[in-house]
Amino acid sequence: MSRVFNFSAGPAALPETVLRRAGEEMLDWHGVGCGVMEMSHRGKAFTRIVERAEADFRVLLKVPDNYKVLFLQGGATQQFSQIPMNLLDGGSADYLVTGSWSQKAFKDAERMARNIGGSVRLAGSTVADVVGRVVPHAEMSLDPAARYVHLCTNETIHGIEVQDESQLPLTAAPLVADMSSHILSRSIDVSRYGLIYAGAQKNIGPSGLVIVIVREDLIGRAWVGTPPVMDYKVMADNGSMLNTPPTYAIYIAGLVFEWLLDQGGVAAIERANIEKAKRLYAFIDASDFYANQVEAGSRSRMNVPFKLADEAMNDEFIAGADAAGLTQLKGHKSVGGMRASIYNAMPLGGVDALIAYMRDFASQRG
Amino acid sequence: MSRVFNFSAGPAALPETVLRRAGEEMLDWHGVGCGVMEMSHRGKAFTRIVERAEADFRVLLKVPDNYKVLFLQGGATQQFSQIPMNLLDGGSADYLVTGSWSQKAFKDAERMARNIGGSVRLAGSTVADVVGRVVPHAEMSLDPAARYVHLCTNETIHGIEVQDESQLPLTAAPLVADMSSHILSRSIDVSRYGLIYAGAQKNIGPSGLVIVIVREDLIGRAWVGTPPVMDYKVMADNGSMLNTPPTYAIYIAGLVFEWLLDQGGVAAIERANIEKAKRLYAFIDASDFYANQVEAGSRSRMNVPFKLADEAMNDEFIAGADAAGLTQLKGHKSVGGMRASIYNAMPLGGVDALIAYMRDFASQRG
Repeated sequence: MSRVFNFSAGPAALPETVLRRAGEEMLDWHGVGCGVMEMSHRGKAFTRIVERAEADFRVLLKVPDNYKVLFLQGGATQQFSQIPMNLLDGGSADYLVTGSWSQKAFKDAERMARNIGGSVRLAGSTVADVVGRVVPHAEMSLDPAARYVHLCTNETIHGIEVQDESQLPLTAAPLVADMSSHILSRSIDVSRYGLIYAGAQKNIGPSGLVIVIVREDLIGRAWVGTPPVMDYKVMADNGSMLNTPPTYAIYIAGLVFEWLLDQGGVAAIERANIEKAKRLYAFIDASDFYANQVEAGSRSRMNVPFKLADEAMNDEFIAGADAAGLTQLKGHKSVGGMRASIYNAMPLGGVDALIAYMRDFASQRG
Repeated sequence: MSRVFNFSAGPAALPETVLRRAGEEMLDWHGVGCGVMEMSHRGKAFTRIVERAEADFRVLLKVPDNYKVLFLQGGATQQFSQIPMNLLDGGSADYLVTGSWSQKAFKDAERMARNIGGSVRLAGSTVADVVGRVVPHAEMSLDPAARYVHLCTNETIHGIEVQDESQLPLTAAPLVADMSSHILSRSIDVSRYGLIYAGAQKNIGPSGLVIVIVREDLIGRAWVGTPPVMDYKVMADNGSMLNTPPTYAIYIAGLVFEWLLDQGGVAAIERANIEKAKRLYAFIDASDFYANQVEAGSRSRMNVPFKLADEAMNDEFIAGADAAGLTQLKGHKSVGGMRASIYNAMPLGGVDALIAYMRDFASQRG
C-alpha cells in the first residue's frame, strides 16, 4: 500500500525522507558496522549524533547560550510533576488553564506542591468556555512574586494556540510553556520564556523523548528529594546522560532537524503551516456542514478540531476518509468530533486532499 | 562495510533479522500506510503491537497471571527512586550491594527514604572486594520485616551474576531485582520475586524503555506525592498508557521477543549463552595474559570483564580489535580494562572470533 495522509495528533506523521534514511541506516550507520540502536551512548559515533542534534535544534529555534537543552524521558506528563519539583522551591506558581493539557499540568503541580512544600494558584481559566480561547490579559490574575507562570501554548485536544507573543502573560516571573504540539512550527523568542518543554511525538520525532529548554539561572534549586535523573541541574551537568538516554529517538529527532533545515528552517515551515491552516479554516468557516469551536484569535495552526452538523454521520465520515487514505481523523474522546493534526510533516497536498474529501462528503450527505 | 561483532554493554547489538524487518517496515507497517513511529498509541494497529509484545514476553518468562507487566520510561536509574516511592510505604527496605548498579540503587533509595519517610538498610556488601562475588548467605543480615530486599542480579560493570536461585536471599520479604543486563538470557522463576525491572537496551531492544514485572498485591500504596506517571498502580490500571509510551521501542522489543521465540525461547538461548560464556572464560583462565577478577560461582554469562597482564597495551588491544571488526570492548571507566558483553544477540561465532583475536594478540605481544 502507498503512504496515506496521516492526521494523527501524536505520535504523528514524520517526513518520508527521514524515515527512508532511518531505514537505510538501520543496520549500519555511516559505515561503523552497527545501527544507531546498537551503539554505546558514550561512544564517538553517538556523541556525534547527539551533539549535531542539539546544535541543529539550537539553530532552528535560535536558543540563546544561557539556556540548556535537555533530552529527557517520561513525556510532557512527567514534566507536569518534574517542573514544580525543580522550580517551585517552596514558593508559589501561577497556572493558566485553557484545555485538557494545561488542566492536567495544574492538577499534577497542585498535588506535588502539597507534598514537597509550596503552592499553586489558578491564574486564569477558559477551560469551561463553549468557544475555546487563550486567557485574555484582562482575565489573568498574576502573582508578581510567582516562581513561574505555566501555560500550554498549544492545546492539542482543543485546538487552541497562543498565536502571538503579545498574548503571553505580562509578568516578570519566568514563563514555563508546554509547547509539545507546536514546537518548531513557528518562530518563537526563546528569551521570553524561563522554560519550554515539548514531547517529541508531534513535530520532533518518536515518542519517548521530551526536550526541555531551560534558562541556566533557574536550575539548581530542586526539591531535595528529586530523583537525580529528574533534576535539571544534574542532567544539565551530565549532558543529559546521567543514565542511558533514548538514543534512537534522539537520532530520529536529529534527522527531523536536518530535514527542517533543508526546508529553509522554522521561518519557511511556518509559512507553509500558515497556508495549510488558512485553507482548512477558510473551508470550514464557509461550510454549513462543518464547524470549529475556537475563537479566531486562538485557533491552532497545528490541530484543527471540527464537528459535523449531524454527529450521527461521524462513523461514516471516518470510514470514508480511511478509504480515501486520510487517516486518524477521529477527535479526542473527551471532546468528540474530528481533529485534523497538520504538523510540519503534513504537506499542503494532504490538506487539499482532506478539504476535497470534506467537500464531497458534505455535498453528498449534507 | 559489513556488520561487526559488537560487544557493547548497552545499548547493545540486536539480532540482524530484527533490524532488517524494522527497516523494511519503517514507512509502512503491514499495509496500514504509515510506519510504527507515526501511529497513535491508542489506535488499532499499535494496540495489536503492544498486546502481542506483552503476550510474547509473558510466554518467554512464564510470568504468572498475578503479575503486571509495565512498559515504562526513565531507565533502571529512574526505577532506583521509583521503587522506594512505590514500595517503601513508610517502612524499611534491605539492599544488597555487589557493584556499581546496586550501589547506585541503594544511594538513591536512601535519599528518597529521607524525604518521603521510611528507611533503607545495607543488608550485605561485597563491593569493596578485590575479587567480585555475590553476597553469600552467611554475610547477609536480613530484616524479616523489610518491605522488600533489593539486589542487582547481574552487575553489568563488574560482571557479577546471581547464577542460581539458591543464591537469592532467604526471606519472606519480596525480592526486588534489577535484571537489566541478563533478563531473557536464562530461565527464572518469576514467582520468587516481588518485582523485576530491566532497562531494555541490553537484551530487549532500544534504550528509553524499561520493563517492570510486579506482583499485583504490592502496588497501590505509593507515596502520596508520587507523580501519576511513576505510580505502578496508576500505570497498571492504564495499561502503561496514562501518557504516550515509547511506542517504537516497544515495537522493537516485540520483534526481539518474536525472534527469541523463533530461537526456541529462553531455554534455548540460555544453552547458547552457557556455551559462549564457557568458551570465553575457559580461554581467559587458561591464559597467563588475560585475567577475570570474579569468583567462579558469581561470574556473569552476559558481561565478561578482563584485564591484560600489561595494561599499557590496552589501547593497542582495542585498536587491533576494532580493525578486526570486534568493537566496543573497552571496559567501564570505573574499573578499566576490557569487557566483552555477550548478550543474546551475540552469536557463538562472535565469541570464537574474539577468542581467536585475543590468542593472536597474546602470542604476539605476551
